[in-house]
Amino acid sequence: MKRVEFTNTVLRDGHQSLAATRMRTEQMLPALADLDALGFYQLESWGGATIDSCLRYLGENPFERISALKKGAPKTPHGMLLRGQNIVQYTSFPDDVVEAFIRCTANRGMDVLRIFDALNDPRNLETSIRATLAAGKQARGEICYTISPVHTVEAFVEFGEDLVDLGCQSVSIKDMAGLITPKVAHDLVSALKKRVSVPIILHSHDTAGLAASSYLAAIEAGVDVVETSIVPFANGTSQPDTLRMMALLEGHPRCPDYDRERLARLRAHFEQVYAELKAFTSPANERVDVDILTYQVPGGMLSNFRNQLKEQGMAERYDEVLKEMPVVRAALGYIPLVTPTSQIVGTQAMLNVKFGRWKMISQPAQDVVLGKYGQTPGPVDKELLALVEKQTGKKAVTVRPADLLEPGLPALRDKLKEKGLPEDDETAVLFAMFPVETEKILRGEKPAAPAAPERTGVRPKKYVMQIEGKKHNVEVEEVA
Amino acid sequence: MKRVEFTNTVLRDGHQSLAATRMRTEQMLPALADLDALGFYQLESWGGATIDSCLRYLGENPFERISALKKGAPKTPHGMLLRGQNIVQYTSFPDDVVEAFIRCTANRGMDVLRIFDALNDPRNLETSIRATLAAGKQARGEICYTISPVHTVEAFVEFGEDLVDLGCQSVSIKDMAGLITPKVAHDLVSALKKRVSVPIILHSHDTAGLAASSYLAAIEAGVDVVETSIVPFANGTSQPDTLRMMALLEGHPRCPDYDRERLARLRAHFEQVYAELKAFTSPANERVDVDILTYQVPGGMLSNFRNQLKEQGMAERYDEVLKEMPVVRAALGYIPLVTPTSQIVGTQAMLNVKFGRWKMISQPAQDVVLGKYGQTPGPVDKELLALVEKQTGKKAVTVRPADLLEPGLPALRDKLKEKGLPEDDETAVLFAMFPVETEKILRGEKPAAPAAPERTGVRPKKYVMQIEGKKHNVEVEEVA
Repeated sequence: MKRVEFTNTVLRDGHQSLAATRMRTEQMLPALADLDALGFYQLESWGGATIDSCLRYLGENPFERISALKKGAPKTPHGMLLRGQNIVQYTSFPDDVVEAFIRCTANRGMDVLRIFDALNDPRNLETSIRATLAAGKQARGEICYTISPVHTVEAFVEFGEDLVDLGCQSVSIKDMAGLITPKVAHDLVSALKKRVSVPIILHSHDTAGLAASSYLAAIEAGVDVVETSIVPFANGTSQPDTLRMMALLEGHPRCPDYDRERLARLRAHFEQVYAELKAFTSPANERVDVDILTYQVPGGMLSNFRNQLKEQGMAERYDEVLKEMPVVRAALGYIPLVTPTSQIVGTQAMLNVKFGRWKMISQPAQDVVLGKYGQTPGPVDKELLALVEKQTGKKAVTVRPADLLEPGLPALRDKLKEKGLPEDDETAVLFAMFPVETEKILRGEKPAAPAAPERTGVRPKKYVMQIEGKKHNVEVEEVA
Repeated sequence: MKRVEFTNTVLRDGHQSLAATRMRTEQMLPALADLDALGFYQLESWGGATIDSCLRYLGENPFERISALKKGAPKTPHGMLLRGQNIVQYTSFPDDVVEAFIRCTANRGMDVLRIFDALNDPRNLETSIRATLAAGKQARGEICYTISPVHTVEAFVEFGEDLVDLGCQSVSIKDMAGLITPKVAHDLVSALKKRVSVPIILHSHDTAGLAASSYLAAIEAGVDVVETSIVPFANGTSQPDTLRMMALLEGHPRCPDYDRERLARLRAHFEQVYAELKAFTSPANERVDVDILTYQVPGGMLSNFRNQLKEQGMAERYDEVLKEMPVVRAALGYIPLVTPTSQIVGTQAMLNVKFGRWKMISQPAQDVVLGKYGQTPGPVDKELLALVEKQTGKKAVTVRPADLLEPGLPALRDKLKEKGLPEDDETAVLFAMFPVETEKILRGEKPAAPAAPERTGVRPKKYVMQIEGKKHNVEVEEVA
């Protein structure tokens, strides 16, 4: 039996899940030699929220990060997470912009593109897959895993076949909410191994404490690769830790043999980085949270959500909103909850609770109903569809969403020229997604938001001081 | 295939592992009806550190807790954890005291005694098992699981056979450090199922993130019972959560069907209790910690240990002390690390680092070397034995440790009489183990230590402050 291989996610999903995507390139560099020497199947090092974070918070050029990481770890294939037609944003972009983004990424040396669509609509993946293959890179198709009456093992396997038909050289089960159980993992991997001939990968999160056991079941069923991270950017809402997974496989004929000394050294390094990112980490994300088994929403979403409700003065209605989410999701054709649909469903559930069900419908929820994100897995609720069509005066569409979009690059270049900014592809695609942040970076301005929130304690602290027996009211402010 | 059953540990190991054993009886009472109705195999509700905690911190009569819990949950068998000849303390007690303790426990209605010895020396279990059976109660023999060259599957199985020969009606694998891997769990359970005919139970901790997967492997191998708790007193250094374990078994023919609504209600209750016990909980204990895979020590020990080293001004030598522990353990015949041996090995490792290896040997470590805790699993290091025999002027013994002890009850009753305290068995056995605390309780005094540690910042702190060149004695109190 072939040993199972691990992808290491510490440079992307590890800190996206546990430290709000705030790891800086300079914090990654010292780890690259060891990460590269370990011989992982892939290093997931880019994509997802990292581009947004580079621009918005870290003041880094995200494309330069690829070059730096490739230089420091040249042997192992690097992977990035791409949201299909949404690139790394929340809505569809025209084909020419998607193609330009993938070209830029490939030129910088990115090896593998993990391509997913929040609705599992193959039409939203076509352009990305074609562009990836055209650039001579590996297209890895992602099946977004979720639980609903329409998401059967057979439906997922058929979608896996679609991905291979579209040209994907590997197929991955993307269990972003950590919901997959050992039984389903076993059945789904077994079926995929029978029906498609490319490598099968399982990517999960230990949010509800299921991932490690489901990895084992998938390994029994013949999965080629599972994805792990490194403590303290592992477990909880992130991927299971590498050493933990090796311990779980001890004595198993498929147990891989990654160098423990290097792993220990990497852990020591990342412990330090984790401490540096203290402002963005939360013990709640490190622990197993079985809540998710009831609400079936991605773990990261719950904590963001709590904050969002607090800002809306709705903190005490958290449970109500959570209970509204399955209702919204069913009405929207059981869309999987993953960026951007998790945000859309969450916001709509909040609006339903605040104003009454469907009394106020957000623009993105209207767009889902009208087919602008693609075909929903199940049908949209008929009454909701009628309501939205009436409110907006528009009819639902069935074409590929991007077919409704004009090419975007010419207008982007005009805009950049007008602003006196460079008009190259990298600038254009970043500007397409993050215009404000990209312009600031290009003009050498500080990021819009501080890299770290200001610490409490910067404010003067108040004390009563008794000095030689006499009480004084004292304010103390720490001076840097 | 028979469904697997769960023991629920929330009333004992759940809060012992995650909240320093500080749950009060009144915090348990509202949960009892639901816990009882769920139909668990057992409710672990007493023993271990709970008796110490009742007396030392909570100001409760521990025997009255049994009565209250049995009254509130009369249908499900209640279990307690007993340290064999050590009862619930750290050293051997005379047979008559052990027998009296078990009689008292049985009279209060305790149904199952989980009996273990830190050295897995059957002679240390004989009296407890005999007394349990004489009282008409169930004796559940515990195999302390650990990893060492002498702890083979065959050695554990032979010890399991010894337990049945001694009269145990069930045999449990007690994996107090959460070290058992799926492979070992499978092999050990399979072998035990072949060789003994009583029910086999697996008790683990999710400290290193292995327990849930190892439970699954044990269930495949035919284990009759696994032990789970309820969030937030579950996972991490405690047992896996009940709902989580049910999710992991979804679709498995052995999956049990515990009422999810009651479990949700219990969770809501225990969330509140957990919040009330905030002073004793730590996010570090809730998360998976793979450190333990390297050091093989119980999770709770690591955090206690860090504090102990801090108090000794040795905080920065934590790693050194951890690395010394396997050395100490090997020299002491590979004793398992569980109360009290974990404390003995930890303290000796600290002394070895502080003063040089074996330059100062603690009294309990000397006693282990001299056979006073029983037969060690492997032989004690010869040079160490010679050194201790020389230092103490004593020869190692090979008899059953308790055979060296005179009966204890008559002297205990004299002492109680002298103090004008009741002389009944319950008082005598508590006084034997915790004389100071028991006397305080009986005299209606407040517990020795506060139920909750005082928060730093509440008491004014004292400083010498130099203000504009002049020294002042200053007391500082923070104002909210």
